[in-house]
Amino acid sequence: MPAYIEPRVLKGFRDYLPTAEIQRKKLIQKLETAFSHFGFVPIDTPVLEYAEILLGKGGGETDKQVYRFKDHGDRDVAMRFDLTVPFARFMAQHVEELYLPFRRYHIAKVWRGENTQRGRYREFMQCDFDIVGTDSASADADIVLTIITALKSLDIGGFMVRINHRGLFNRFLENKGMSEKSSSILRTVDKLEKIGVQATRELLVAESDEKTADEILYFIHPEVEFQETLNKMRALCAADDPLADEAYQRINAVYAIVKKAGFADCIQLDPSITRGLDYYTGIVFETSLGKMPEIGSVCSGGRYNELANLYTDRKLPGVGASVGLDRLIAALETIEAQKSQQPCPAVLIGALDEALFADYHALAMELRIHGISVEVYPEAKKLPVQFAFAEKKKIPWMVLLDCKALDANEIPLRILANRETRSFKSREGLVSFLKEQLASLNRESGQDNG
Amino acid sequence: MPAYIEPRVLKGFRDYLPTAEIQRKKLIQKLETAFSHFGFVPIDTPVLEYAEILLGKGGGETDKQVYRFKDHGDRDVAMRFDLTVPFARFMAQHVEELYLPFRRYHIAKVWRGENTQRGRYREFMQCDFDIVGTDSASADADIVLTIITALKSLDIGGFMVRINHRGLFNRFLENKGMSEKSSSILRTVDKLEKIGVQATRELLVAESDEKTADEILYFIHPEVEFQETLNKMRALCAADDPLADEAYQRINAVYAIVKKAGFADCIQLDPSITRGLDYYTGIVFETSLGKMPEIGSVCSGGRYNELANLYTDRKLPGVGASVGLDRLIAALETIEAQKSQQPCPAVLIGALDEALFADYHALAMELRIHGISVEVYPEAKKLPVQFAFAEKKKIPWMVLLDCKALDANEIPLRILANRETRSFKSREGLVSFLKEQLASLNRESGQDNG
Repeated sequence: MPAYIEPRVLKGFRDYLPTAEIQRKKLIQKLETAFSHFGFVPIDTPVLEYAEILLGKGGGETDKQVYRFKDHGDRDVAMRFDLTVPFARFMAQHVEELYLPFRRYHIAKVWRGENTQRGRYREFMQCDFDIVGTDSASADADIVLTIITALKSLDIGGFMVRINHRGLFNRFLENKGMSEKSSSILRTVDKLEKIGVQATRELLVAESDEKTADEILYFIHPEVEFQETLNKMRALCAADDPLADEAYQRINAVYAIVKKAGFADCIQLDPSITRGLDYYTGIVFETSLGKMPEIGSVCSGGRYNELANLYTDRKLPGVGASVGLDRLIAALETIEAQKSQQPCPAVLIGALDEALFADYHALAMELRIHGISVEVYPEAKKLPVQFAFAEKKKIPWMVLLDCKALDANEIPLRILANRETRSFKSREGLVSFLKEQLASLNRESGQDNG
Repeated sequence: MPAYIEPRVLKGFRDYLPTAEIQRKKLIQKLETAFSHFGFVPIDTPVLEYAEILLGKGGGETDKQVYRFKDHGDRDVAMRFDLTVPFARFMAQHVEELYLPFRRYHIAKVWRGENTQRGRYREFMQCDFDIVGTDSASADADIVLTIITALKSLDIGGFMVRINHRGLFNRFLENKGMSEKSSSILRTVDKLEKIGVQATRELLVAESDEKTADEILYFIHPEVEFQETLNKMRALCAADDPLADEAYQRINAVYAIVKKAGFADCIQLDPSITRGLDYYTGIVFETSLGKMPEIGSVCSGGRYNELANLYTDRKLPGVGASVGLDRLIAALETIEAQKSQQPCPAVLIGALDEALFADYHALAMELRIHGISVEVYPEAKKLPVQFAFAEKKKIPWMVLLDCKALDANEIPLRILANRETRSFKSREGLVSFLKEQLASLNRESGQDNG
C-alpha cells in the first residue's frame, strides 16, 4: 500500500470551493463595474519583487511578516504584502508612459505571515483604487462617490462613509500646544470605536491632562449636521490659521460636491476618524454598514502627499481607498443566505440512454446559444444517482430525454423543486420557458429587494 | 539628496499596464462565460503550499525551477508551478464535500524560475478546466465542445481542434513490437511540427529502423476525412485487439457527438498529436489558429486515469484542457489592432470653472446611472492640458461646461476625433446620443466582424 501524502493546506491559507469562489467573483465584478464607470482602469504587478523595493523603509512590524527568500539567482526577493508599495514602484517606473492624473484599481492577493491566532489569514485579497497626480477636492470627492456607487451596487443595505481631515485635527492640536504628541494622540483616538469613550479618555489623560482629554473628546464628537460639526472643528483651531482654513475649505468643497450629486445622506463628518497610519495627510475616511456595524470599516482610505518618494523625485500626491473584500463577503453571506442564487448550470441533461449522447450534446449546445448554462450528465447511470447529483449541485431543471420522447418530438423537463415534469413540443418552447424562469430568478436576486 | 531605490521588476516578471490588463480581463471574462455555459464552476487554491504536496513525485526538471523556501515557522513551502497539482490535492481533500463528476475551472498565476533567455516568463497565468470523476466519451466531447465554444466567443477567426487517442498509438506500437519504446517515440513524434518530417524520421530511424520509421510516419499522417484517418489507425493495430477497439470506439463516439452538435468542421483527427507528458492515457488534443498557426497550440489537454493518486486511493479519472492565455493575447493583439475598442472612460467632463465642480460631479453621476463611464478632470487647468489628457487616455467625448452654458441650459459636447462640438439642450438628449454612439462602437468591436 502506498504512503499517501496527506492533502492539506498551510495554516492561515484556504481553498475557495465553488460557492465561495463564485460569490467572490461576483463581488469583484460589481466593484470593477463601479470603478470603470468612474474611469478607473486595472493594472497588475508581479507577486514577487526585490525585497529592497518592497521593504525600502526597513525595520518595522511589517518586515517580520513578509515572505522573503533568496531566489535561484541568489536575489533577495519577497512576496508583496500590500498593493500600495508595488503601486508606488509602478508609478515611479511608468509615469512617463502613463497620463496624470492616473486613476487605477488593483484587485489581487497579498501575503503576510501574521499570527493566525487572531483569525487572520496569511493569504488574502486586497482591492485598492487611487487617483494619483492631483491634490484637489474634486479627486477627494471622486473617491467618496466611487465608494458610494460601488457599495450601492452590492445591494447590502444602508452604509455611511465617515470622513474627516487630518489637517483639522493637527491644527486643533497645534492650537492646544500638543503638536509633538499628534501621532500618538491620533492613534489613541483611532481606537475609540474599539475600546469605548471611557478607556480612550484614560489613555488621553495619561498623554496630557484631564482638561485636554475632555477637549479632545469634545473635538472628536460628531454633531448632528455635517456643517455644524465642521464649524465646531474650525472654531476649535486658531482663528487666524491659514492651514485650518485650507482644510476647512477642502472638506466644505468635498461636501458640496457629494451633496449636489444627491448623496449627502451617505456621508458623515466624523472627527474621530483618524486612520492610524502616518501616511495620510488630508481627507481620511472609513465606511460602516448600517445593519452590521460590528463588521468594521468595509472601505477605508485617504489622501497622501507623496506616493512614490522612495523611488523618484516626482511629486505624486494622491487619494485612494481600499475595499475590505473579506468583510464585504461576510456581510453578503448574511444577506444573501435569504436570496435565490443564479444556478450554474441552470439545466442538467439527464443521460437516460447511452445511444443518445450526441442528441444530448446537440440540445445542450442549442440552449447555450440562448445564454442558458447546461451540463450533460456524462454517463447513463441510474436516475436516482443523477437526481442526487442535480440536487447537490443545486440545478433547478433536468431534461429527461429518452428514445420514446425523442421519437414523439417531446422534451420532458423535470422541475426538481417540486418534482413535476412538463413536456415541451419544441425546443423554442423549452427555451422561452427557461429564459422566462431565469429572468424571474434574476429579478429576485437582483438590485430591487435589498 | 536622497538615494532613490531604482524602480524595477525582477527578470522574467512584468507589470501589466492598463491597456494590457484590460485586454487580459476581457479575454478571461469571455472564457469564464463559456465555461459557465457548460456548468464549469470556479475554484481557487493557495499560492503557497507545502513543498511536499507540490513536489511529491520528487526529482525532475520541474523541481529546480520551483520557488521554494522556509517560511516563518520553518516549514518547507513552495509557490505553485502549475494548477494541476494543487487541483489534485484539492480533489483529494474535498471530494466528500463536492459532487462527482466535478467540473471546475481555475484561472490563476503560477511561477517557474525558468531560463528567461528563451523569452519565457517566470510569472504567468494559467487557465485550466477539467471534468473529474468520469471516464466517458461524453465528458471527452464536452471538453472539445467547450474549447470550440470558448474560441468562437473570442472572435479570433478559424481554428482547428486536433484530437488523437494515446491508446491507439500505443496499440499500434504494440502491434509493431515496440511498446517499451513507446514513451520515447511519443516524445519524438510530438516534435514533428517543430522540427519537420525529415528530422523526425532521422530520430525515429535512430530509435528503430528505416522501415519502422516509415510505418510510424505513415501512421501519424492524417488523411483528409476524420473517419478515413480513424479507420487507417485502427487497421494498423492488431485485428483482434480489444484495447484498440475500445480506443477506436471512444474516438468514434466523441466524433459523433461533436458532429451532431454541428461542429465537425472544427475538429480534425491528427495521429501526430501525442502531447509529451506520460500523464495522459486517452484522448489528447491541441488547437491551432487558422490565421496564425505559428503561434502554436492555444488550447491543449487530454484524458488522464488518476488525478490524485499521490494523495488518496479514490480513483479520479478525468479529462481537461489548458488555455494558452499569453498565446491568445498575442493572437488577439494582431487582430484587435484593427478594431475599435470600448473606451474607458467614455466621457471626460472638462474642468472649465473651479466654481462648477459640484455640477460636474452631479452630471457625471447622472450619466453613470445610464451605464456610461465618466471621469471628471479634477483641476481647472488650461484646456489644452485637458485635451491632451483626453487624447492620451483615448477618451472620445468631452463635456465643456462653463457658467454661460450652464445658465443657458446647454451641454456642449466636444467630439475629440474631429474636434467638432455639439450642443445638447437636455441631459436626456446627451444620454441618448452617447448611448447610441457606444452601442455602435460595441457592434464594431463585437462578434460580427471577425
